[in-house]
Amino acid sequence: MITRAELESARRRAMTLLERAGIVARQDELERIEVADMGLSELEQSGVQILTLVDTQKIAAKVLVLLPYQTEPEHRHPRLGDYPGKEETIRCWWGELRLYTPGEPTPKPLASPPARRRHTYTVWHEQVMRPGEQVTIPPNEPHWFQGGPEGAVVWSFSTKAIDVTDIFTDPDVRRVTVVADG
Amino acid sequence: MITRAELESARRRAMTLLERAGIVARQDELERIEVADMGLSELEQSGVQILTLVDTQKIAAKVLVLLPYQTEPEHRHPRLGDYPGKEETIRCWWGELRLYTPGEPTPKPLASPPARRRHTYTVWHEQVMRPGEQVTIPPNEPHWFQGGPEGAVVWSFSTKAIDVTDIFTDPDVRRVTVVADG
Repeated sequence: MITRAELESARRRAMTLLERAGIVARQDELERIEVADMGLSELEQSGVQILTLVDTQKIAAKVLVLLPYQTEPEHRHPRLGDYPGKEETIRCWWGELRLYTPGEPTPKPLASPPARRRHTYTVWHEQVMRPGEQVTIPPNEPHWFQGGPEGAVVWSFSTKAIDVTDIFTDPDVRRVTVVADG
Repeated sequence: MITRAELESARRRAMTLLERAGIVARQDELERIEVADMGLSELEQSGVQILTLVDTQKIAAKVLVLLPYQTEPEHRHPRLGDYPGKEETIRCWWGELRLYTPGEPTPKPLASPPARRRHTYTVWHEQVMRPGEQVTIPPNEPHWFQGGPEGAVVWSFSTKAIDVTDIFTDPDVRRVTVVADG
């Protein structure tokens, strides 16, 4: 749960970073920026801001904004019936993104998720991504990422996005942001 | 067929427009910009420059550069076996794009394809696209587009791209650019 003020603050900060990154969006798209606190009520630490530009029955193109050191918790995009699950290419466009996927754990990773949630982060192979660098994540592969010191603006190019079916390692995550009254 | 000098000139001009448009790409990606003259040997009039950023078995994200008044000839993305054909969202990012699709013909369209090829342009419903505007083109729907006075930089977000199977209305089109020796 976040307050209306927290939501508006995150949206404004995201819009500032989108502008620095040279992202070209219409006003109506910007007004629909999703502020996702993942139900953890610690938006500065855990969450992401999402600008959806394309979202058809077949593909999606979204711009993700990570505030400085903000972490999108570990999750995967599972199979759903005939659909093998979302394949996602993450491309860094501005700032720095630390991406973690399965593989050899990096001995001294740059990112540190919130201490009391660390046990819900299970993949530790680090790739530090700068503008122009990208990684394709196959369906159902767990991954998480964190913005660098100035945050990050990254593209997510993917097959069909069905966010509500994403599976988060942390059982406390709720994909829908609840805004507190008042 | 185009000369090496024409190819390099088009690539340089495309890179200038990509920079103006704020497209973030690595050097190795820029070096692979495809200059497509469609085999028509009139690159200034007919053709497109393509920067491919994502190209997996499932999706593609490309940045198309149209030089001023340059036209990508009418074509469609047909079914191929189980694959229903490429669904493509064209999003204007910089400049102006005139897009033509099936529907009510626009009485006084802004674009005019090369006069001697005009009979190979059959769809005339015009949408003049400015930065932030986009249109999704279903599989197999014919379409063509032209850059405005300053050219255009546009995203193509799509399902799997199999360019060599594209069907062009103009039987003279050859999808592979041949560069003249010398």
